[in-house]
Formats: sequence, C-alpha cells, structure tokens
Amino acid sequence: MKTYLDCIPCFMQQALRAGRMVTSDEKLLKQILNKTGEMVKTISMQATPAETGMIVYNIVKEVTGVNDSYKNIKQQHFKETKSIYSELENIVANSDDKLLSAIKIAIAGNIIDLGVNKSFNIVKDVKIILKQDFAIFDYEIFKIQLEKSKNIFYIGDNAGESVFDKLLIKELKKPVKYAVRSIPIINDVTMEDAIASGLDEVAELIDSGCKSPGIILKQSTPEFIRLFNTSDLIISKGQGNYEGLSDCKRQVFFLLKTKCSIISNHLGVKEDSIIFKEHKI
Amino acid sequence: MKTYLDCIPCFMQQALRAGRMVTSDEKLLKQILNKTGEMVKTISMQATPAETGMIVYNIVKEVTGVNDSYKNIKQQHFKETKSIYSELENIVANSDDKLLSAIKIAIAGNIIDLGVNKSFNIVKDVKIILKQDFAIFDYEIFKIQLEKSKNIFYIGDNAGESVFDKLLIKELKKPVKYAVRSIPIINDVTMEDAIASGLDEVAELIDSGCKSPGIILKQSTPEFIRLFNTSDLIISKGQGNYEGLSDCKRQVFFLLKTKCSIISNHLGVKEDSIIFKEHKI
Repeated sequence: MKTYLDCIPCFMQQALRAGRMVTSDEKLLKQILNKTGEMVKTISMQATPAETGMIVYNIVKEVTGVNDSYKNIKQQHFKETKSIYSELENIVANSDDKLLSAIKIAIAGNIIDLGVNKSFNIVKDVKIILKQDFAIFDYEIFKIQLEKSKNIFYIGDNAGESVFDKLLIKELKKPVKYAVRSIPIINDVTMEDAIASGLDEVAELIDSGCKSPGIILKQSTPEFIRLFNTSDLIISKGQGNYEGLSDCKRQVFFLLKTKCSIISNHLGVKEDSIIFKEHKI
Repeated sequence: MKTYLDCIPCFMQQALRAGRMVTSDEKLLKQILNKTGEMVKTISMQATPAETGMIVYNIVKEVTGVNDSYKNIKQQHFKETKSIYSELENIVANSDDKLLSAIKIAIAGNIIDLGVNKSFNIVKDVKIILKQDFAIFDYEIFKIQLEKSKNIFYIGDNAGESVFDKLLIKELKKPVKYAVRSIPIINDVTMEDAIASGLDEVAELIDSGCKSPGIILKQSTPEFIRLFNTSDLIISKGQGNYEGLSDCKRQVFFLLKTKCSIISNHLGVKEDSIIFKEHKI
C-alpha cells in the first residue's frame, strides 16, 4: 500500500502524540513538529506509511533522547490483557467453533494500537468486538488452508494484543513461528514483549529485522524473507503489516481492525470494521 | 489566543483541504504539503492560529495559482441561506423574544465554516441549533449594553453566514458598521460577499484590512482600529475573530459555534457548543 496525501497530516499528529508520551515540554514538542514538517518533502508517496512512520518515531527519539517512550503503557496493557486472559480462554473453550472465537479475540486485541488517534478500553471493547460481525470474512478458505498447512508464520503487531495472539496460536494446533519488530517502535511487539506475553511457550519467536511500525520486506532479515516465502500459511496482524504486505506476491491472511479512513477505503469497508481477509497471489 | 501545538497538524489538514478545493493533481497537493511542512518551523506559538492560517492559504494560492478557491461553494451557500431566509424571518417575527431568536440564527449561520473539518447541512443544522442551549449565555448583559449603545461594530466571519447576520442586524435597531475581510480567504466574508448578502441595506460596510481568516489587530486599517476602540458595542462572529480578539483590551460580545477542541478548551466548553460570551475589559 502506498502513502496517501491524508497520511501526511496524520504523521504530524503521530509525532505530537508520541512526543507527548515522553515530555510535556512545549519547546521540545515544537521541535519534533518542526523536524517532522521539514521531513514532509522527503516522503515518497510510493513508500508505505509505515516507512515514513519509522522516520517520524526516530525524530521523536532523537529530539527527546528517549528510546522506548511506550514502555510504561505497554506494561499496563500487559496487565489488562492478562487480567481477562482466563475469561477469554473460557469463552474459547465453551465455543461451538473454538477457532473462530480465538480469531475474534485476536482481532479484538488489535484495538491496542497507539499509532492511531483512537481511545480504547481493553476489557470493554474486546467484549463488544466479540459480538461484532466481520466486514470481510474469508474463514472457510482459511480453514481449508490451515487444514493442509504443516507450518504457520504469524506476524505480530502490538504488545498486549500479543497476549491474545497466544490464544489463537494455541487453537491453530500447528507449529507456529511468530515475528516481532527489531526495536521498540510505538507499542509494537518486540522480542521482549513477545516473551512477556508467553508467546515463547506456543511459538518460535523470530526477529523480523523491521524497525518500522509495520513489515517492510526490503528491510527484513533473510530468515524472515525465507519464512515469508516458504511458510504454508501466513497470518498478518494489524494495519501496519497490512500496509507493507497488501501488494505482496503470495497468499496472506490479514487479521485486523480498521482504525483509519485510509486503510478502510483501501479495503472498501467502513472505519472500525473487523477484517479477516485472504490476500490472493 | 496563542497557537497550540495541536493547531500544527490541523494546518496541514487545512492546507490539503484547501488544495483539494482547486485541484485533484496529487503532485500539486504534495507540493502544498511540502511547503506547509517546511513552514512549520517558522510558526510563532505566540501568534494567533489565524495568522498562520493566512500563510497556509497563501501557500495554496501560490502553488495552485488560484486566488479564490472557495468562490463557487460560497455561491452555493448564498443560494441555500437565501432559500430559508424568509422562513427564518418569520421565526423571528413570531418569537416572544425577537432579538434572542435573531442571535440564535446568527450563531447557527456560523456552521458555514470551511476552515474546519466538519461537514454541515445548512437547512437542517440551522433548525437543530435553534433548539440548542447556549454553553455560555451573556444575553442579559448584552441587552443592557445594547440599550445604552448609540452605535454597533459587527465583525463578520463567513460568507453565507452573513445572510443570517442581516437578520440579527435588523433586530439590533441601532446604526451598525459591518467589517469584512480584505481579500478572499477560505470562505470568509469579503466586501463583495457582504453586498451579495444584502448587508449594505442594513449596515455600513467596512474593510477590516485583514487578509487572514480572523481579525489581526496589528494588520487592521486605522479606520477599523478607530471603530474597534470607539464603538459602543462590538459583536464578533466566529472562531477566527475570537482567536484574534480574545485577549483584547475592551468589551466584546463573541458569538460563535465551537468547532475544534482547542477553541472549546480555551472557552471551557464542549465541542459544538454555541457561545454568546461577554469579553470584559
């Protein structure tokens, strides 16, 4: 997916929001906006928004000197997601279609996204999404593909959400490799976060090599590329990964909640839709 | 009122929205955003948002070569406001408190603002606002001031809205001077628009000297300043004028609908409130 013109004011908002996670110093925040504004002319509209996102969050790191501004809030999200984990586990266990329930829970976790301007209440919103209908629902095709797959490559998105990914991975009942970001960027899931989510108990964790809030194939490690090309089934979580993989040359199952008008329009759905979409070759 | 950090992403949105009024050429629109982005570092946080707004809209004019990008849409707003003028005139005529009804209609007209990211339906929204309660309501003080005033200085805001200002001016029953913008900027009311609104029949029209989407006293003509300092009563319409006059050293009655979080917070009210506020010396 390319960058849209409307992404550009959004980069300014993201810069300000990320800056405010670390400082309330108006001069530093203005400096972040100055540098982000100056950077606009370098944005290639052919790049994915996640590529520019990386530059924006690097500006915030550079100006504030803080490397992981979302560290504390990620801890809070772990606490909240873990507090309802058993309850959600019971919902899955008591479902007629356990796999589908686990997919819905994994999508519900995708609300925990601090890259967009949406407030959320984890415990409350998850339960609402569990009752929400899918705007795109390629479940039958997924089940067929899952049935014949020997291995699965699961590309993670946000920390906290990763706790719910564990529930889905358990229901897939196949060997899973789980890819994480290389460094802390927004509240995206890193190796440390994946371990804190207990994902190492159910999957093999893989560093994607990406330092952006979404997969960029040309920045990924050879191992990531190999797994991406050869795995039998790929699940990609969230908007940032969708941006980077929506034009890729293999089958991918995108699992996300649409949280901005650009992604929603790209998928042809309303904002705040839940999506389970097969991307075909 | 000073510029807030949140105004800066909003300037980028305004630049894009204004550009799109004139062109759908993505390269030109990107160029507008590049120049607006570069300009961010020159923004003084002590200036009013309207001062920076002027620079933003000048960038749009410069890049597109179009001087009055809102010309057509202003004509459409005139058509719509004039189509319900008699009906609103009847509402005033049949009211127990004619002055208050006319004030509400004048505020309702303030929805016709293309500087903010809000869609509106003139005919429908005006009727909703007529039933809305004021968040700030200094009507009693206004009536006392009006009673003892020999002359009134009325500072206009948007074209179309200006048609409803005529209704209020007729109810004031005092000599009124009506100030307009010096040049077309967004959909703000110019001399030509004021005449098209029939305001020349009820008031003496004055060029404010301002080329910004809101009064900037240091840019105003000596005549505007004289009237501003000496008039018995001042009515200031809309957000842009509020930004420029909220710290001024005389009594002003602000009549506006709050259409962004920054102005709403500054006034201590919720967004989409209707305001009739006495600014004291």
